[in-house]
Amino acid sequence: MEVTAYIDNLWILIAGILVMFMQPGFMLVETGFTRSKNSVNIVMKNFMDFSVGAITYWAFGFALAYGGSTLGGFVAYGNFFLEGDSTTYFFQVVFAATAATIVSGSVAERTKFSSYLLFQPFICGVIYPIVTHWVWSGQGWLSELGFIDFAGSGVVHMVGGFAALAGIQVVGPRIGKFDDSGNPLPIPGSSMVAGALGVFILWFGWYGFNVGSALAAVDVNLAAIAVTTTLSASAASVAAMYTSMIAGKPNVGMTLNGALAGLVGITAGCANVNNLGAVLIGTVSGILVVYSINLIEKKGFDDAVGAVSVHGICGAWGVLAVAIFDTTDGLLYGGTSLFLPQIIGILAIGGWAYATSFIVLKTIDNFFGLRVSKDEEIAGLDVSEHGTTAYGDFILKK
Amino acid sequence: MEVTAYIDNLWILIAGILVMFMQPGFMLVETGFTRSKNSVNIVMKNFMDFSVGAITYWAFGFALAYGGSTLGGFVAYGNFFLEGDSTTYFFQVVFAATAATIVSGSVAERTKFSSYLLFQPFICGVIYPIVTHWVWSGQGWLSELGFIDFAGSGVVHMVGGFAALAGIQVVGPRIGKFDDSGNPLPIPGSSMVAGALGVFILWFGWYGFNVGSALAAVDVNLAAIAVTTTLSASAASVAAMYTSMIAGKPNVGMTLNGALAGLVGITAGCANVNNLGAVLIGTVSGILVVYSINLIEKKGFDDAVGAVSVHGICGAWGVLAVAIFDTTDGLLYGGTSLFLPQIIGILAIGGWAYATSFIVLKTIDNFFGLRVSKDEEIAGLDVSEHGTTAYGDFILKK
Amino acid sequence: MEVTAYIDNLWILIAGILVMFMQPGFMLVETGFTRSKNSVNIVMKNFMDFSVGAITYWAFGFALAYGGSTLGGFVAYGNFFLEGDSTTYFFQVVFAATAATIVSGSVAERTKFSSYLLFQPFICGVIYPIVTHWVWSGQGWLSELGFIDFAGSGVVHMVGGFAALAGIQVVGPRIGKFDDSGNPLPIPGSSMVAGALGVFILWFGWYGFNVGSALAAVDVNLAAIAVTTTLSASAASVAAMYTSMIAGKPNVGMTLNGALAGLVGITAGCANVNNLGAVLIGTVSGILVVYSINLIEKKGFDDAVGAVSVHGICGAWGVLAVAIFDTTDGLLYGGTSLFLPQIIGILAIGGWAYATSFIVLKTIDNFFGLRVSKDEEIAGLDVSEHGTTAYGDFILKK
Repeated sequence: MEVTAYIDNLWILIAGILVMFMQPGFMLVETGFTRSKNSVNIVMKNFMDFSVGAITYWAFGFALAYGGSTLGGFVAYGNFFLEGDSTTYFFQVVFAATAATIVSGSVAERTKFSSYLLFQPFICGVIYPIVTHWVWSGQGWLSELGFIDFAGSGVVHMVGGFAALAGIQVVGPRIGKFDDSGNPLPIPGSSMVAGALGVFILWFGWYGFNVGSALAAVDVNLAAIAVTTTLSASAASVAAMYTSMIAGKPNVGMTLNGALAGLVGITAGCANVNNLGAVLIGTVSGILVVYSINLIEKKGFDDAVGAVSVHGICGAWGVLAVAIFDTTDGLLYGGTSLFLPQIIGILAIGGWAYATSFIVLKTIDNFFGLRVSKDEEIAGLDVSEHGTTAYGDFILKK
Repeated sequence: MEVTAYIDNLWILIAGILVMFMQPGFMLVETGFTRSKNSVNIVMKNFMDFSVGAITYWAFGFALAYGGSTLGGFVAYGNFFLEGDSTTYFFQVVFAATAATIVSGSVAERTKFSSYLLFQPFICGVIYPIVTHWVWSGQGWLSELGFIDFAGSGVVHMVGGFAALAGIQVVGPRIGKFDDSGNPLPIPGSSMVAGALGVFILWFGWYGFNVGSALAAVDVNLAAIAVTTTLSASAASVAAMYTSMIAGKPNVGMTLNGALAGLVGITAGCANVNNLGAVLIGTVSGILVVYSINLIEKKGFDDAVGAVSVHGICGAWGVLAVAIFDTTDGLLYGGTSLFLPQIIGILAIGGWAYATSFIVLKTIDNFFGLRVSKDEEIAGLDVSEHGTTAYGDFILKK
Repeated sequence: MEVTAYIDNLWILIAGILVMFMQPGFMLVETGFTRSKNSVNIVMKNFMDFSVGAITYWAFGFALAYGGSTLGGFVAYGNFFLEGDSTTYFFQVVFAATAATIVSGSVAERTKFSSYLLFQPFICGVIYPIVTHWVWSGQGWLSELGFIDFAGSGVVHMVGGFAALAGIQVVGPRIGKFDDSGNPLPIPGSSMVAGALGVFILWFGWYGFNVGSALAAVDVNLAAIAVTTTLSASAASVAAMYTSMIAGKPNVGMTLNGALAGLVGITAGCANVNNLGAVLIGTVSGILVVYSINLIEKKGFDDAVGAVSVHGICGAWGVLAVAIFDTTDGLLYGGTSLFLPQIIGILAIGGWAYATSFIVLKTIDNFFGLRVSKDEEIAGLDVSEHGTTAYGDFILKK
């Protein structure tokens, strides 16, 4: 092997390590934005997202994404219980775990742990791998159409976000989220500091996510990807903060979700747009996420952390934005050829993730029940599902 | 481009990612050392430090530091709304955000959010970039004099620390910090664990800060810089702990600030001193920071996190220490030629950062008010400025 | 120096930085699993573990491990107060601090701070360095026998874990850990979220620990090591969770310690086993740690965080597992030659760490007292040892 290949592999490894660190980022966002009585449950779901995800992706997820042979560009097969291909496995497994974890947050505070465990192998091992086969395997039908998703606004974030949408529909809203007239009520989170630390950790890990997706360090301009990522996230958190001020004071939850929205939004195009494009993509992401979160709530859906908006809606925007801001074929540079593949990709990925997740979750719900009992929910999942509490010697509100 | 250049760029990228992660480090130190009722406000300031900083540095900060042309070694111009130069931008923008964030901690718990937002573009986009032009652009008047500041004890930390000094003068002490006779009173922080995590994160990120400042990975001894950094921080935290014991028990706040002081102290000379020099620089830093924090308090200033001492005073010490411990031209090795440029640098950087920050902050104060009202301060900035609380379901002291 | 050597050194540096970040991981696990009234004390011990460790290892620890000359393969000498050899020093010092920190957790909540400080130089500067000389110096008697411990299940984790066993024997159980009949009682931790964040940080840092131990990036398959590490930790956390369910609900403490057990278990063989071997090693680690924690408690020992089981017992299992799963000489591949050296290694390392730690701690106990008074323990070490509290404005249970 050439020295340059070792340099490439070293960067992919380091990037994968950074992406792995996004797991505690998600954990902190989810525990911070929700109530203390459910924190242990969220911790457990996050540990299992990565652990069950890694085992599942080794046993069969990799096989369906990159197994070697392809069934018409739709799914791969081969290399079950993988040995070898370590670099690809390691970088991909951390992405698979990310897709699963996104769902965890949306359905927090009312989902039965044992039933959630049943869902994980499907999203890490089937739903997500098949989409990666479509786009990143070199054999997939979507990449054949000219679909561009450099680091996964669609492949990872839309998959997670639309699976989360199915999740909140099947499991229903938390007790106390809506008043008798159906108006949404605030449920204050246990720690905005934990939530903010989580977002900063995610931002940090995102450099592995986006820049690592170059899958090389030689003959590429890695720093340019880091810069578009930084500018989009920055513009989005500023935009979300000011958008939140239309309704009142600068809102911390919206600002934090704004930063994430900007990161999701730039993920598809991070290597294809310039700095000005990144600022504009981020600005739109930051505005969009605030309206989306409010709209979803008004429609009677209860997304405990806003993940459907952050990952699903802004993921779709990120995919579409490539057709506008791509510096060679984007609309701003006189091209229109990207609109069709990007829109087909949005519909295919969103539809696939939503439909398969809905079917799997509804089936689990029918056979085992996806939701804890009313008493268990009110007591908190930490006591009812895990027989403990998260903050042993702190005094908490009832 | 040569393969070696890609290796260099890869390291600068990774180092920049590590430095970016210092942002949550600062956030945790600041929230941990202050009261829960102001935690959301600190979170918001930290997010805006990085977000506004990144946009500002892209729009005009880079232009004033590295824009290409120079006005007499004092300020650059060119490359506004930057495209290209991604590696330099990315590594520099995380430094710019660091300089801004230092101020945030000192003025915590009483500063009006909207007014703080006005200050950020000045420090990230003007005050800091101009100092970098003096020292690191290859065109600056200070580097022409022979001034040495390898990674920024002066360029970054003194700028932040002396801007913070101006900040605490203009905004005044917190209600309850001094008794009627003017004696300082302790204001216990909300979480020493968060504070300690913050310091460890900063220490971790500092390897990017100091070792990354080599701006290369080939033909340099990177590990030597990591070792001097480690030894100085370690010696300083031990020294600060024992110094704190003169007045009583081993003090956690002083120990944590001691570690930071040792990191700031070695930053200027990390590539120019040997291991023994690093231990000595750190030891002095750790002792110095304890006396400085106590002295500043006794003088009636209220620095909520000790940042003036950590970054300002120990930054100056770090710059001066190069003249003593530099292994080729330092006093210990028979040289005296470095004293003049280092002292000029200390005076110029400290004076510039203090004076410009004072003018900007005083102007903001006159037009918009830099401080919240007495009622808002007592209620806490989270409620008054952001309409929320940080720890929704924890019961807190009044 | 060749370009490839710079690439190797760059990776070792980055890996060392990742391992350094394990310090706050340990700190969070230890504070999270114990009571709020002792959190500042744990913070202080962790800061001193790294700080005193770094100074000690510079002054004489490195000299006894890699000083150049050897006394019969038992101990090295030379290079006291090290200058040079920076790459080796930096990667090793973070390992030395890890070994020390493991002890800190087990003896938490009742150990006198000043006496603990006396122990640190022994473990970082003598006990651990001598074991590294045996195995990793190229001059040691254990490596001569054919003993394999790629990244330190024995050299680091067994040293820490068996020193911790000596520690909990000398210091005795916490007040309230056992009822009058000697049955163990639960002592709920202050934050399972902090504990979980700590475990995720350790997992993240472990990629530096294991993959960095290749001490190269060119001509090695780094990603394969990252994959075995991931699979073992994942299998172990799943296995520990299901094992904990035999006695009731899925237990968060056991799951978190399960992940750590899987990381410790794979550390010796991470470069010598395949993916299936890693899954099996992890599964055994996860089951083993649950039974070990319960057994140690039943025997009347009080290990506040389970470190003896995680690092000592699973460290021994990891060393032994190489003899079974090594893909060239392991039992599963028809070899038996590794059993003797691995068992000798387990006995030598465990016996050495236990015996030397016991002697040092017992001596400290006789001269200075290793334990705080009953009143101080009940009040909490934060107040009695450091004159402060960790969570200034939170209301805590008595």
